[in-house]
Amino acid sequence: MSLAYAFDVKARDGKARLGEITFARGAVRTPAFMPVGTAGTVKAMFPETVRQTGADIVLGNTYHLMLRPGAERVAELGGLHRFMNWPRPILTDSGGFQVMSLSSLRELTEDGVTFRSHLDGSEHHLTPERSVEIQRLLGADITMQLDECVALPCPDEEAERAMLLSRRWAERSKAAFGSDPARALFGIVQGGTVEALRVRSAEGLQDIGFDGYAVGGLAVGEPQDVMLATLDVTVPVLPEDRPRYLMGVGTPEDMLLSVMRGIDMFDCVMPTRAGRHGQAYTRFGRINLRNARHAADPRPLDAESDCPAARDYSRAYLHHLVKAGEILGAMLLTWINVHYYQSLMAGIRQAIGEGRLPDFAAQTQAEWARGDIPPRP
Amino acid sequence: MSLAYAFDVKARDGKARLGEITFARGAVRTPAFMPVGTAGTVKAMFPETVRQTGADIVLGNTYHLMLRPGAERVAELGGLHRFMNWPRPILTDSGGFQVMSLSSLRELTEDGVTFRSHLDGSEHHLTPERSVEIQRLLGADITMQLDECVALPCPDEEAERAMLLSRRWAERSKAAFGSDPARALFGIVQGGTVEALRVRSAEGLQDIGFDGYAVGGLAVGEPQDVMLATLDVTVPVLPEDRPRYLMGVGTPEDMLLSVMRGIDMFDCVMPTRAGRHGQAYTRFGRINLRNARHAADPRPLDAESDCPAARDYSRAYLHHLVKAGEILGAMLLTWINVHYYQSLMAGIRQAIGEGRLPDFAAQTQAEWARGDIPPRP
Repeated sequence: MSLAYAFDVKARDGKARLGEITFARGAVRTPAFMPVGTAGTVKAMFPETVRQTGADIVLGNTYHLMLRPGAERVAELGGLHRFMNWPRPILTDSGGFQVMSLSSLRELTEDGVTFRSHLDGSEHHLTPERSVEIQRLLGADITMQLDECVALPCPDEEAERAMLLSRRWAERSKAAFGSDPARALFGIVQGGTVEALRVRSAEGLQDIGFDGYAVGGLAVGEPQDVMLATLDVTVPVLPEDRPRYLMGVGTPEDMLLSVMRGIDMFDCVMPTRAGRHGQAYTRFGRINLRNARHAADPRPLDAESDCPAARDYSRAYLHHLVKAGEILGAMLLTWINVHYYQSLMAGIRQAIGEGRLPDFAAQTQAEWARGDIPPRP
Repeated sequence: MSLAYAFDVKARDGKARLGEITFARGAVRTPAFMPVGTAGTVKAMFPETVRQTGADIVLGNTYHLMLRPGAERVAELGGLHRFMNWPRPILTDSGGFQVMSLSSLRELTEDGVTFRSHLDGSEHHLTPERSVEIQRLLGADITMQLDECVALPCPDEEAERAMLLSRRWAERSKAAFGSDPARALFGIVQGGTVEALRVRSAEGLQDIGFDGYAVGGLAVGEPQDVMLATLDVTVPVLPEDRPRYLMGVGTPEDMLLSVMRGIDMFDCVMPTRAGRHGQAYTRFGRINLRNARHAADPRPLDAESDCPAARDYSRAYLHHLVKAGEILGAMLLTWINVHYYQSLMAGIRQAIGEGRLPDFAAQTQAEWARGDIPPRP
């Protein structure tokens, strides 16, 4: 753990950046997609398989882990990396977002948020300081500040109130985190869809000073153009020498278009959740394996994929597994989806390095638009 | 598919036999445990992982596959081996056992059994001839005759009636199967726990002539000593030059004691089902990962196992996955269990070859009796 955290931009193509984040536990090639390892597992995947898809880093959820098995328990067991058998970098979220979406009886005050566990109803109190402490106990390589994320659309006054609270919590998070050159603390830009609020938030966070900057409060149901417009006003205010992380995003197209606006990191449950619900992400777009058109189709999802799950099993078999509710269906489709997300990011990185990202984007979008291969005659 | 089916006994130790069944698709080392691939998948395992545990053959369920996706569909798709991406031998059952245990509105006649699917209520008719046809469509390397399996205990008259019906169905199965040197047809000994019936059944089947002989109607809830006593009277009546398959058995100890009575093949859902319910089979016996004693235990299930799932993940992590209902818990525990079953069979085979099966059995049973390693202080 002696190697200091660092971020290096290696190439640019328009606003897009090819970079590398260095940790003692390994490098993260950016733009990066982080599979979500909610409760200490990227659902339905062996950690070796997650790595084989090309993932350099995964995300762990503070909310889930603090409730079960508990942060102190994970620390006793040697930290989250050892616990989940993932020796590479881990980013943990602050827990705030899932307190808002999953728990009950929430009470938000200046100090923090009090809530009841969705598991057993037990009462918990999460403050910026406790969130940083939990993430330290987990052993996070990247710690996220506690923030308040409002639902969109919302009144400007509400967006401002939450942004200002998040900024005060950012200060407290920084103070609690202290100085640790081996680990990174990221601040989170809030401000809803109000340009002036986003700019004030981004500037205020830089006054505090963070190792990276996340754009929060997006991918909460707003149209894609609203999200992209918010990036257009937010990213230019962020420093050039720090990674930029768009939280909770998104579809393959969301990621592609956000990279072109200067985003370096993403996380999303989409590929894993879709994999448990019979949906596949491929270069042909999103494919619903429940559809009867696949029932007698001996062809694989993508004969040219280098993912064994996409190449070595027929669509008919995947359809059968999904219809029968077989665990292997979730295993294969999750693998296919995380592999596709990682191969998309690898393609994006290569295109940036070669200065042809617009061409790559146009070709990739055209492929998605063409859609799936025609049904067999 | 040109290589003929053959069975070769290579060594004996008491009544136990070390052997090999040859198929065009590969050899099956006996005594063999066949993981159950119910609906075209050994639940929660990649086929490559099933193979890595040492499995030479898996079992497919005619009942499940005839209902979904349908035998003709599987045949169109190139057969069950290609469908489930398992290129090695497959034994399929006749469907009869699960018609009795899973379907509704059954009507049993001399001709066969009429039943309604547990999936959609559709009506189906299964005869000895149709069962053989379905298994041919699936591409089975070993086909099982349709039989009637009665629940134990049962009146002797009922056991006799079902045994005689099963024998008539055996004749019809043989006629329907015809001659196919590349594939095997097994008859099934019935007769409940009545010695005279078991002997009559075994002799009657040999008059018809089969490539292998199964002992059916056991492992249906009777005590272990009743099962073993039935083997003691049945196996000596079976021919020396054909494999003997004890259907639906069993626990590791059931298998060990049955091998010592001359059984060559087993199948059972125990290791896979237990793996989805938080139970692990190890050399320390059966371990319940739900138990709170594992919650803070950083030790793996078996540090000396060569199964990565048993060696590279802590008991605390497995406990967490089980408590959280995570798919990875089922994936790791199923892998551990199938690996343990296969390593037990490998140990049994080696011991027979070296003429020390009684010693191996005594040591293995002593290890099971000692139970799990003590909790951490």
